[in-house]
Amino acid sequence: MTESFFDKNKFYFPVRVYYEDTDAGGVVYYANYLKFAERARTEFVRALGVGQNKNLSGENPCAFVVCHCEADYKSPAVLDDLLTVVSEIEQISAVSLVVKQNIFREDKLLVALKIKVAYISLKNKRPQRLPSELNAWYTATAAAKDKNSNNAAE
Amino acid sequence: MTESFFDKNKFYFPVRVYYEDTDAGGVVYYANYLKFAERARTEFVRALGVGQNKNLSGENPCAFVVCHCEADYKSPAVLDDLLTVVSEIEQISAVSLVVKQNIFREDKLLVALKIKVAYISLKNKRPQRLPSELNAWYTATAAAKDKNSNNAAE
Amino acid sequence: MTESFFDKNKFYFPVRVYYEDTDAGGVVYYANYLKFAERARTEFVRALGVGQNKNLSGENPCAFVVCHCEADYKSPAVLDDLLTVVSEIEQISAVSLVVKQNIFREDKLLVALKIKVAYISLKNKRPQRLPSELNAWYTATAAAKDKNSNNAAE
Amino acid sequence: MTESFFDKNKFYFPVRVYYEDTDAGGVVYYANYLKFAERARTEFVRALGVGQNKNLSGENPCAFVVCHCEADYKSPAVLDDLLTVVSEIEQISAVSLVVKQNIFREDKLLVALKIKVAYISLKNKRPQRLPSELNAWYTATAAAKDKNSNNAAE
Repeated sequence: MTESFFDKNKFYFPVRVYYEDTDAGGVVYYANYLKFAERARTEFVRALGVGQNKNLSGENPCAFVVCHCEADYKSPAVLDDLLTVVSEIEQISAVSLVVKQNIFREDKLLVALKIKVAYISLKNKRPQRLPSELNAWYTATAAAKDKNSNNAAE
Repeated sequence: MTESFFDKNKFYFPVRVYYEDTDAGGVVYYANYLKFAERARTEFVRALGVGQNKNLSGENPCAFVVCHCEADYKSPAVLDDLLTVVSEIEQISAVSLVVKQNIFREDKLLVALKIKVAYISLKNKRPQRLPSELNAWYTATAAAKDKNSNNAAE
Repeated sequence: MTESFFDKNKFYFPVRVYYEDTDAGGVVYYANYLKFAERARTEFVRALGVGQNKNLSGENPCAFVVCHCEADYKSPAVLDDLLTVVSEIEQISAVSLVVKQNIFREDKLLVALKIKVAYISLKNKRPQRLPSELNAWYTATAAAKDKNSNNAAE
Repeated sequence: MTESFFDKNKFYFPVRVYYEDTDAGGVVYYANYLKFAERARTEFVRALGVGQNKNLSGENPCAFVVCHCEADYKSPAVLDDLLTVVSEIEQISAVSLVVKQNIFREDKLLVALKIKVAYISLKNKRPQRLPSELNAWYTATAAAKDKNSNNAAE
């Protein structure tokens, strides 16, 4: 199985389909793509230096929570498929972000997701500032993208 | 635990939250509300006389598949909560339907879902006519609703 | 769907099989019977007055944890099956219990489970005294059983 | 994340713990270790050339089914843990095998599993001969082990 990696502002994460993911219709159960997407988001932020368990412990335990989720199911995945979840940040604020996540089998797009995630305190459920690594990375890759666009335009 | 029931065009289905549904954040894991919603849809169509396993066997095995899903997570459910999934058909065609599903704890709306479901042949993945019970029921309850609206307007 | 109930020292708990429980082999995925069993144990202790969420909150959060599990898979369950989990306490000590759980479809035994559960503090992971309702109930039903046996022998 | 690999007769498979695997007790839910074990068995047989989806299609669809499972839960895994499932075949016959699977976090054994798996036809539920790669591999590694033992004894 290939490893996860970044390509510019996109994060590529491989997922293998096991029996646990499928249902009696012979395909991946619709809710389980959301698990694949969450694994990809977790590895995304881990790759930026944000360990979620560390944030769960400590004085003010915090966690990412999903506020909104949209999923377009275009074609089903089946047992043994090797999928790739391609994630990119579409929008980011001080306390939340919108992640676009597309799930592919080779070049075929199977499921297109858009997930809004907030960062909250588990004690008082109030929004917290996102771990700074996220905004820093977004700014850096967005700046790089703009620069590339400018170059391309010259 | 109370039983499921219809009230006019709405189907009420109770769900208890168990350890399996929760995660280390202390709340129900976001993908698991989609399981609750699917249980509710299954009991909804079963109550109308549509058994899904029967449709999986036979010469032309058919199944409901989710094409699109939107979820608004407003407030979290926790262990031991007794939830109610309230489902109603928003739109229906010959081969698909849109179901609005709201998940409540008592009067508090926790998650609002909108699910588009198609009915397909598992062999050729082509759309099939919905089981006739669904259109018949929708027509009957929609007619009743219109009649009620007329009465109310008088 | 029938409700759960006690019959002497046995607790009967109904479980419906949904798509989420099945896999591409067309049967219930082997790990999911353990979810059914846990739901049954939860309702068993709830019926005796032990709410698990209440025990998770408070000064010394406690939880039941499974120490050992054995499962004999005799025959598979399929989509739409209505199963019954029959649970009884085989052994009980101050800090743990062994529960025998048989999962039936009508009269056919599908899966036979034996689960050892301890009660622990989540803070220090040390064994805690079981909620007193459990030992009290076990003593009462065991006494009743012995009395019945004596009567029968007379 | 490290890749899976063989060391003599043992197969090492890494598993990362995500939110989906944990519960409100803050640890991995007991049934989910069985999912980790199944992923490891799947990659084990895939590494020997046995693709399960290929066996599900075709004229006589076959699948591995678990007949018996024992699990000793010694210590809990938590969010973000990187676990290793170490699998080895303890016994093998023409139609079934017993796999010993130990789940570690670094050197600490968390869960010890013993799983009996049969190979069956999904049509008539009858036992089928195991894919020949399995017996061949077992014989080869067992022979190598015996030879090593002999050498050691000299």
